[in-house]
Amino acid sequence: MPTTTWNRHHILSLADFTTTEYDTVLQTAASFQEVLSRRTKKVPTLQGQVVANLFFESSTRTRSSFELAAKRLSADTLNFAAATSSMTKGETILDTAKTYLAMGTDIMVVRHREAGVPNAIAAEMDRLGVRVSVLNAGDGQHEHPSQALLDLFTICTLIDPASPRLELLKGKKIAIVGDILHSRVARSNIWSLIASGAEVHLAAPPTLLPKLFAEYISEELGVKSQESSPHFSTPPLFLHWQLEPALQDADFVMTLRLQKERMTAHLLPSLREYHQLFGITRTKLQLCKPNVKVLHPGPVNRGVEISSELMDDPEFSLIQSQVTSGIAVRMALLYLLGSGKA
Amino acid sequence: MPTTTWNRHHILSLADFTTTEYDTVLQTAASFQEVLSRRTKKVPTLQGQVVANLFFESSTRTRSSFELAAKRLSADTLNFAAATSSMTKGETILDTAKTYLAMGTDIMVVRHREAGVPNAIAAEMDRLGVRVSVLNAGDGQHEHPSQALLDLFTICTLIDPASPRLELLKGKKIAIVGDILHSRVARSNIWSLIASGAEVHLAAPPTLLPKLFAEYISEELGVKSQESSPHFSTPPLFLHWQLEPALQDADFVMTLRLQKERMTAHLLPSLREYHQLFGITRTKLQLCKPNVKVLHPGPVNRGVEISSELMDDPEFSLIQSQVTSGIAVRMALLYLLGSGKA
Amino acid sequence: MPTTTWNRHHILSLADFTTTEYDTVLQTAASFQEVLSRRTKKVPTLQGQVVANLFFESSTRTRSSFELAAKRLSADTLNFAAATSSMTKGETILDTAKTYLAMGTDIMVVRHREAGVPNAIAAEMDRLGVRVSVLNAGDGQHEHPSQALLDLFTICTLIDPASPRLELLKGKKIAIVGDILHSRVARSNIWSLIASGAEVHLAAPPTLLPKLFAEYISEELGVKSQESSPHFSTPPLFLHWQLEPALQDADFVMTLRLQKERMTAHLLPSLREYHQLFGITRTKLQLCKPNVKVLHPGPVNRGVEISSELMDDPEFSLIQSQVTSGIAVRMALLYLLGSGKA
Repeated sequence: MPTTTWNRHHILSLADFTTTEYDTVLQTAASFQEVLSRRTKKVPTLQGQVVANLFFESSTRTRSSFELAAKRLSADTLNFAAATSSMTKGETILDTAKTYLAMGTDIMVVRHREAGVPNAIAAEMDRLGVRVSVLNAGDGQHEHPSQALLDLFTICTLIDPASPRLELLKGKKIAIVGDILHSRVARSNIWSLIASGAEVHLAAPPTLLPKLFAEYISEELGVKSQESSPHFSTPPLFLHWQLEPALQDADFVMTLRLQKERMTAHLLPSLREYHQLFGITRTKLQLCKPNVKVLHPGPVNRGVEISSELMDDPEFSLIQSQVTSGIAVRMALLYLLGSGKA
Repeated sequence: MPTTTWNRHHILSLADFTTTEYDTVLQTAASFQEVLSRRTKKVPTLQGQVVANLFFESSTRTRSSFELAAKRLSADTLNFAAATSSMTKGETILDTAKTYLAMGTDIMVVRHREAGVPNAIAAEMDRLGVRVSVLNAGDGQHEHPSQALLDLFTICTLIDPASPRLELLKGKKIAIVGDILHSRVARSNIWSLIASGAEVHLAAPPTLLPKLFAEYISEELGVKSQESSPHFSTPPLFLHWQLEPALQDADFVMTLRLQKERMTAHLLPSLREYHQLFGITRTKLQLCKPNVKVLHPGPVNRGVEISSELMDDPEFSLIQSQVTSGIAVRMALLYLLGSGKA
Repeated sequence: MPTTTWNRHHILSLADFTTTEYDTVLQTAASFQEVLSRRTKKVPTLQGQVVANLFFESSTRTRSSFELAAKRLSADTLNFAAATSSMTKGETILDTAKTYLAMGTDIMVVRHREAGVPNAIAAEMDRLGVRVSVLNAGDGQHEHPSQALLDLFTICTLIDPASPRLELLKGKKIAIVGDILHSRVARSNIWSLIASGAEVHLAAPPTLLPKLFAEYISEELGVKSQESSPHFSTPPLFLHWQLEPALQDADFVMTLRLQKERMTAHLLPSLREYHQLFGITRTKLQLCKPNVKVLHPGPVNRGVEISSELMDDPEFSLIQSQVTSGIAVRMALLYLLGSGKA
């Protein structure tokens, strides 16, 4: 592992991540990626430590990824699933967290459908003066930092496998397409991509990318939002209500999962129309740079966010790489949070 | 670990626990508490042994505690959860247990909402002449021995951290408050506390502490129950239909979880009235000894059994210590049951 | 472990298993059975490898068996359960499998209620050119190879514990009784038993053993089916619509689980009548060879497929041995699939 100083005690949001922190995560993940290519894929780094996956919102895929990352660091894992838990018995979330703290948990990986729950748990741990770390594994429509970091790692290792670092994205055009409004993945990615110096283009139907959201994001970023209907343009963040200007000369296209529940809420006319307008296909990719790559956080609705043939095309799709990167990046995050503890 | 003789093959009830057995558990747990404070928290004691958590009634908190205890002893764990199991396919409980026996389970940790299930499984294992041990992790309204033992350990280590032993409780006044009638925790605690020579005061509304129960408990304990309405008094067990005489000069107050289902059964007027009459608050604690401590087996209904501010007050609340003690005590129980096996 | 060549990359069906393959599984399982009798039951064979249990159909018993087998080989395990998974989010089965592949899974143990799913996953893995192995843990009414192999191992080790091998069954009469039509266990057993040179007698009511099925099976086996109502007789496979001719002089009786859902489908009059006609009892066993043994894949409906007293009679019942064999056989299968990988 790279010898480095890491002072962040919780990973809750990427909004205030520094370039040094991004680079430390990327380099540490690269080291673990190398470990994962060895015959013996386990390292004793977190032996005796306990990683508790507190998934108040169920997710097999993300939970498995964190669980395997923890096991490959030789940590012991505890899985908490809301469905079979004391939550139904009226216990508060903070009390559940404190129970896992009292059992001896070193790192809590927290997912919840309400924004802010991981922050609330982290604040409570700090108030108590304990050394436990909290890692946000997705909270409501707020953030999903480990997903954005694995997206970043996937892109950076593609550009320079030997030395992934944030500056590699400088000047790249990256399109984020889909349900921006409801996406915690988009929010976390916006922070990291803007920090990298990339040009970020958001594209979605107006119902999924309202002006108010654009203003909010611009304000958070400290950039001035200028409306030039039908799309805003405030470097380095651009917002479009049509797909084409976002795809034009893009280096990377990040598609977002479309929750089918959005239909019932009358935010979209139909899945078919959505696919026609904002679904990514090989034809539409011709607008992009020739060696453009497509990402998706999964699980994918084939034929909605992305065409089935494009998803399976190794020339364009990074979707499988993202999952693989997920193990290395989550090992890195657990390592950085946990290595100072014992 | 203390070198000791331990002859009990199953832990099903505390009704016939001897002083030596209590002290062995307390001393063994103290050794593991020390292990848990080390950098490397794992010991190889039960390597290669299998601990099966057969939770016919779901409980994340207790299951996680047993699972972590087993993992810290380097045992392999199997989790059986009734919801996703063959139970729905009509298999009997004994057949499920025998299946886990045949797979090579060494220790079965059993929870069931019917009283007597762990005993029935243990009896079947003995009939078959096999060496597997059964540990009752809560059966109906019968017993929850590991909870009472961790309560005991929590109290004893507070009095003498270096050498927790049963006699430390001699002459202490301990109040158990709440839904005595339906509580397996109360039943197990009554056995251990009476054995210690403590004075045990039960306090609950008459619907949750009926005369018949008082007579049954007294008979079991071999003491004569004398009614002196509104409360009985038969040393060393005292029963009260009001909170105040139980709290008067108490050294420890054990509160019990109130199942909200009791409301529907018309056993209680309202949660608010219950809290006013039997909920523990800082004000009510002024009746107790100045350094009184409060316990609760969790999960807590804040503002019902105990006020929210009291629960979070480290001066009075032992609730977090109980959870921590749970790991050490369960490691001790698994160790004592398992160490003679391999 | 026996030094042997094993070239099969997936275990999906026993239809094309060779004698050498059967014998390799049996001998490898015998080696692991010996390991399981030692004080230290774990071997480091699959350390660092990942076994993912992808159970799209829930099964605690089979999942626990595979999980324990993997743990005793020191593999890391991931459990995927359909109920709490992305399946509800619309992801396809192949995408789920590819996600677990991308995480670094070495062996996928797959159960699904549709026939052919494990084959489809294996075909996709091969198409992708990856080294991951797929092990069918039960697919619809198609096959359940590990169950048939553990049945085979149970029988062969009974005949010659030191050297279990396929030829030991040559000339033995084996009755398979029950819901043949819907049983993946029966299908897999038919392949292995016919391959061994045993005489296989199927017995069931006509609704659960239709003529069409008899013809299909005969064709698959390459034998000619001759009707001689009320039963067919085409050596080495015989089909009966009555129990008695199947039991006559049988060496082994394999009973099958009766899914209660069959009643609702009007395939059977009543459980009681089924038990009277096809349920196995000590009295009916008098038709068999004196030292006949009875098997059942579990979970058992006591008093339906088999009488309760017979199930518990160690003189006749191999049901517990089957579960124990399951661990050794599944360790052997994971070892054979995994040992060439790292």
